[in-house]
Amino acid sequence: VATQQTEHPIAIIAGGGSVPLHVANAALSGGRKVLVIGIKGEANPGIDRFAHDWIHFGQMGRLLKLLDDHGAVELVLVGGINARPDFSQLRLDFWTLKNLPEILSIMSKGDDSVLSGTIKMFEARGYTVVGAHEIAADLVSLPGVIAGTKPESNGFDDIKLAISAARNIGKLDAGQAAIVVNGRIVALEAAEGTDEMIARVARLNASGRLKWKGRVGVLAKCAKPQQDLRVDMPTIGPDTVTAVDRAGLAGIAIEARQVMIIERDETRRRAELAGVFIFAVDEREVAI
Amino acid sequence: VATQQTEHPIAIIAGGGSVPLHVANAALSGGRKVLVIGIKGEANPGIDRFAHDWIHFGQMGRLLKLLDDHGAVELVLVGGINARPDFSQLRLDFWTLKNLPEILSIMSKGDDSVLSGTIKMFEARGYTVVGAHEIAADLVSLPGVIAGTKPESNGFDDIKLAISAARNIGKLDAGQAAIVVNGRIVALEAAEGTDEMIARVARLNASGRLKWKGRVGVLAKCAKPQQDLRVDMPTIGPDTVTAVDRAGLAGIAIEARQVMIIERDETRRRAELAGVFIFAVDEREVAI
Repeated sequence: VATQQTEHPIAIIAGGGSVPLHVANAALSGGRKVLVIGIKGEANPGIDRFAHDWIHFGQMGRLLKLLDDHGAVELVLVGGINARPDFSQLRLDFWTLKNLPEILSIMSKGDDSVLSGTIKMFEARGYTVVGAHEIAADLVSLPGVIAGTKPESNGFDDIKLAISAARNIGKLDAGQAAIVVNGRIVALEAAEGTDEMIARVARLNASGRLKWKGRVGVLAKCAKPQQDLRVDMPTIGPDTVTAVDRAGLAGIAIEARQVMIIERDETRRRAELAGVFIFAVDEREVAI
Repeated sequence: VATQQTEHPIAIIAGGGSVPLHVANAALSGGRKVLVIGIKGEANPGIDRFAHDWIHFGQMGRLLKLLDDHGAVELVLVGGINARPDFSQLRLDFWTLKNLPEILSIMSKGDDSVLSGTIKMFEARGYTVVGAHEIAADLVSLPGVIAGTKPESNGFDDIKLAISAARNIGKLDAGQAAIVVNGRIVALEAAEGTDEMIARVARLNASGRLKWKGRVGVLAKCAKPQQDLRVDMPTIGPDTVTAVDRAGLAGIAIEARQVMIIERDETRRRAELAGVFIFAVDEREVAI
């Protein structure tokens, strides 16, 4: 296996943002060869620093040929895909047309099913799908403090309640995040997403409907139990810190090993600057 | 007991809105005497149709004297209290000042504790606190259709999931309501309240982030298990119907016997007009 790994590149199928570049660097640092395959209209042009190529949406045949040409059997699917893909970038190649019934059947299901369907499609053809955090371990966190100081007493009670609430709505498949202030659950995430949920709490605070003194309260973010962490991880990043800061909350709690931290250095820098803590909770530390 | 009930009036301590008037009418129709005690700045002036008197916030001594003078031992606490009471209407009478430590201790706790503390304070002095729906049974609903037609198949699946989600977040003491569209939980209520949650779904729909065809999806509203239904009921009313209509949802599901319907006739009229169903779910019909 070790021999095979050094011979065969790991293929990074890249959506938008900086994370695909980070994963490519981590793979190289780990002594792996990489092939970055950027999705046109999504991937960062910076992938040209690595052995790379481009595909359009709809070019599954071209993707499979690139993988075969380079002898890649391990894939990482990573990076953002816009909620509304740019369909001017859509190209349906022959393979895709031939396999359209299978693809449409996958696409017609919900988000989670599209991802698990995509994984199954690759696995059925002999490929292995690997999580980005399995290549770049620093995308996730071990238990402990990431920024600021570990909250004590009431602050830690808020963390425990927020993590428990986030896990509970995860079990319902509703959302991944919750906000607790002074022992009260003030927001639960569903379709609006984490950023909009934090903004709501900022508005409730600004309007006086929610009041607290100083920096208290915590945003918790957890994986849903049914989430496939190889292709779909809860994420936080610099913008999460800024939003939490604006809402007047004390910090962010994430589940250790299960939540991706985008641009970790910048995330930490902003958190330290704003006085916002980031703490990774050991799953054994907080009962649901 | 029957004799005592006809001799002693039922005291209706009235906050704002039409429900206190409705309860007073229901008590009279049931052959009871009533004494409506309106809270200044909150209660509807229409209470002057009934045997009534007024108190200010802070006049607990005056309230207890009114109850004694009229021989009232059963109390209903009903009607809205503004989130920000008008403190120009505050009058601290001697009894209130003397018992300030007890009152402040009650006031310093959360919403639920204020209500249960208030009940305990009355009960410790020999009064019985009765729920408004125990006097006016039509404030709540038996299981079945209230407006429109009972949803079938997928529509009923949405109801079951929404009720289950609402009960789950109720167990967390976070909120009372949830919205489900086509098998997906799209909103969970916490501190923002039901109206704001429905408005959020309307915005997500208008912006295209949530899409559906025709009228589908349901708002569910349930009591929290720890809620004391005598003084604190989940409510829906005409404005709920209008909000649900604007969000493009198919209807409203409530728990039978546990959710108050304000202005039932107007609520039904608007629902029928808009084509929005209202359905009361038997607790045995939907497992959590």
